[in-house]
Amino acid sequence: MRAAVLRSGELVVDEVDEPVPGEGQLLTQVLACGICGSDLHARKHLHRFVEAANASDGPFFLDATRDIVMGHEFCVEVLEPGPGTTGFDAGDIVVSMPTSIDAAGNIQAIGYSNDYPGGYAERMVLTAMVTMKVPNGLDPRHAALTEPMAVGLHAVNKSAIKRGEAAVVLGCGPVGLAVIAALRLQGIEPIVAADFSPARRALATVMGAHEVVDPRDEPAIAAWRRVDGVNTLVLFEAVGVPGMVRQAMADAPRWARIVVVGVCMEADTFWPMVGINKELSLQFVLGYDPIEFGATLRAIAEGDIDVVPMITSSVGISGVPQAFDDLADPDAHVKILVEPALG
Amino acid sequence: MRAAVLRSGELVVDEVDEPVPGEGQLLTQVLACGICGSDLHARKHLHRFVEAANASDGPFFLDATRDIVMGHEFCVEVLEPGPGTTGFDAGDIVVSMPTSIDAAGNIQAIGYSNDYPGGYAERMVLTAMVTMKVPNGLDPRHAALTEPMAVGLHAVNKSAIKRGEAAVVLGCGPVGLAVIAALRLQGIEPIVAADFSPARRALATVMGAHEVVDPRDEPAIAAWRRVDGVNTLVLFEAVGVPGMVRQAMADAPRWARIVVVGVCMEADTFWPMVGINKELSLQFVLGYDPIEFGATLRAIAEGDIDVVPMITSSVGISGVPQAFDDLADPDAHVKILVEPALG
Repeated sequence: MRAAVLRSGELVVDEVDEPVPGEGQLLTQVLACGICGSDLHARKHLHRFVEAANASDGPFFLDATRDIVMGHEFCVEVLEPGPGTTGFDAGDIVVSMPTSIDAAGNIQAIGYSNDYPGGYAERMVLTAMVTMKVPNGLDPRHAALTEPMAVGLHAVNKSAIKRGEAAVVLGCGPVGLAVIAALRLQGIEPIVAADFSPARRALATVMGAHEVVDPRDEPAIAAWRRVDGVNTLVLFEAVGVPGMVRQAMADAPRWARIVVVGVCMEADTFWPMVGINKELSLQFVLGYDPIEFGATLRAIAEGDIDVVPMITSSVGISGVPQAFDDLADPDAHVKILVEPALG
Repeated sequence: MRAAVLRSGELVVDEVDEPVPGEGQLLTQVLACGICGSDLHARKHLHRFVEAANASDGPFFLDATRDIVMGHEFCVEVLEPGPGTTGFDAGDIVVSMPTSIDAAGNIQAIGYSNDYPGGYAERMVLTAMVTMKVPNGLDPRHAALTEPMAVGLHAVNKSAIKRGEAAVVLGCGPVGLAVIAALRLQGIEPIVAADFSPARRALATVMGAHEVVDPRDEPAIAAWRRVDGVNTLVLFEAVGVPGMVRQAMADAPRWARIVVVGVCMEADTFWPMVGINKELSLQFVLGYDPIEFGATLRAIAEGDIDVVPMITSSVGISGVPQAFDDLADPDAHVKILVEPALG
């Protein structure tokens, strides 16, 4: 089948082996798959990505010298249940957590695996146990955003933020926007967001931020002091470049909680005394659990979260390498979908 | 009066102005005051200490070019209540949070103030509001350890550790030992501790650690895996040198909580991807609240925490500079008390 393949740090469009569903698995056809910022990181810093994964005892185990088909934000159509797999039929439109569990209990991260191709391909094998049918006739292109929006919900849940507390979101890329949507859905106010890009700032407002600033004009925390300044503050770091955590710690008020949801591949610095003097906490977050994933799918299907404004373009498999380059311009794109039917 | 003065980064014994109690304050005579590792840091890195304090909007505001009388772990005798101060009489033996609040509401940290001399002096002014009488005829030298032991209780409370969870304590200086005592009092098991010093390892066992290792022989987390390895883990970083947080993050199991209670004066590095992949949290902690301070005083007075093994020496004010040097040897000393009556 055709796929966009990460090979020696380059994205190439090539033929790869057809995936074969095992027990408890489903052979599916990809309808839409979002391109994630982590995939851009992984292409650019593959060895560091693999090194960090191995240093963390997972959750990803990758061999950087072998082919990887990325893509973990997908909506697919079931082609054929694997042997003994029940609960799904050909034609079902489904989403799935990008986690593969085989009959022997081996777990792999779909999209960051040498064995399980992700959604930048014509077909995928999914695990029925973590697959959910798309309800309400939801457009598969919108259902594909379940995964990134679930990241936002999980970050918000891990922060333990509650009504009466304030939120600052640093960075309005897809992760920051997903955090904003989840905060808005939980009734948090104010939500103050910051991004250098005018397009992303506009989108932050659409997704639910109450106050959005260009940090060159006014730092996000100064904006929060202006519009609130009183309630307990939770900061979401969704930029993911070195120096952001240190700056957030420097700017944060005493007892603030900082949630690190932006993936920074490099080693970074911080100043422990500032953390100690202000009794800050840093909570690093990753992914979501099945309940959060399902809740997000329902929220999108029921119109509680409108993901349409986030989708800025669609490309076929042959367009994936160019789309990765295009995503470098934050004013041009937020979420580009790969739709294999487009070619 | 006589005092050991931090002047231009050097400790000198000199005469300083007599402190004068204001409204709501108490003039007291120092009976015993422990030397804290933070004071060693402050002497060695005064400018960095002041810079970090100012970058944090407090809680310390210091002018490094003016005299500072340190000492914030004290037990004193009331000499004379200030004007309008009620509730205390001359002769009362008391401890106090090292926080001065004047009639105008200005807050200063006693021991890190240019205006309020700390306990390395003959006399001090305390604020009645945060002062507590020492019960049960407790020896003032033991009551002086209320402050450092309260630091351990606060760190344990902020960690939200509960029975059924495991603890690893990195570093068995006074802070690590205080954490161990508080963990033991809360029924946490196992408590695994690590220190390079044989004397401190022995003391960790006395204070309540179940398993104590030399990290050169076996890393603390490896020891935890050996004796437990199953329960949720809370790590207390009580060493306070660069690289400890990064190493703790590298060694920690997934979902571990890391409590940073060791004061590291320098900028430090960490690897965000490791934090993200394991969903770690870092909680920085400082001090204690009045309830924790009072609970610690009671625990010592009632024999629930035995601080006697921690006290390794007493000196007069003239012995303070040498005591600071002596504390550099972790096998020789844990807590040295300054007792002005000794000269």
